[in-house]
Amino acid sequence: MDIASYLSGYADGEGCFCVTFNQSKRHAFGWDVRPSFSVSQNHDRAEILELFKNQFGCGTIRPDRSDKTLKYEVRSIPELVAKVIPHFERYLLISSKRHDFEMFAGICRMMSGREHLTPRGFNKIVKLASKMNISGKKKYPRTKIKV
Amino acid sequence: MDIASYLSGYADGEGCFCVTFNQSKRHAFGWDVRPSFSVSQNHDRAEILELFKNQFGCGTIRPDRSDKTLKYEVRSIPELVAKVIPHFERYLLISSKRHDFEMFAGICRMMSGREHLTPRGFNKIVKLASKMNISGKKKYPRTKIKV
Repeated sequence: MDIASYLSGYADGEGCFCVTFNQSKRHAFGWDVRPSFSVSQNHDRAEILELFKNQFGCGTIRPDRSDKTLKYEVRSIPELVAKVIPHFERYLLISSKRHDFEMFAGICRMMSGREHLTPRGFNKIVKLASKMNISGKKKYPRTKIKV
Repeated sequence: MDIASYLSGYADGEGCFCVTFNQSKRHAFGWDVRPSFSVSQNHDRAEILELFKNQFGCGTIRPDRSDKTLKYEVRSIPELVAKVIPHFERYLLISSKRHDFEMFAGICRMMSGREHLTPRGFNKIVKLASKMNISGKKKYPRTKIKV
């Protein structure tokens, strides 16, 4: 049994690579760009979330107020770039979620290089994010976010 | 990357070990007992279902009329006993779904030994099934099924 492969399989089903945009006066171009990797589970299955936390050596587990589940989440860009992304590049996702992951990895690395602070980099991030999680709902249509 | 571990991880999140009871005059004690292992996915992520089918060398993939998804399913008792159950005994589930799997494996093996055709065996199967998927809904309360 290979735990790293197991966790990639689990994440392929239950994980979420997500980039949210929130309006913010304190951030460049008026938008707070927040990438996160998360896995949610019912309380009776929290052991998997602990396993992710131990394997990646980062992230937090906390109750998700919206639906009474527990959520493991990594938001820190340095930790996403150093720990989470390399895992999924070694233990590849098999479903079409891999496409979301690839956009996500590109965005995190750009932000790590502070490219989101330039108009060109910011617009590229918005474009990459628009190609992610196509079936999911978005708080803001991506066409509304532009510099 | 270890595909077998990956599939166990995926199944730990998205798989279902299930035993359904349907009233039937053609079956012993008036109940058709049907174990199944299944994984459902959106059409755009069918590659994972193909992978299960190839790995186990059994089962079918078909549209699930209830919710527009695709479903990989193994219902054949001999194939569950010979192919599916040994996989999950080697590549163990980590979450509390392992408990459901253990009840499921016991029921399949009893049915393989035709124990469901005796009142004692049948009642034991009903009891084991009542301990599975506690949070899921049941078509018939288990207390209604007795010999």
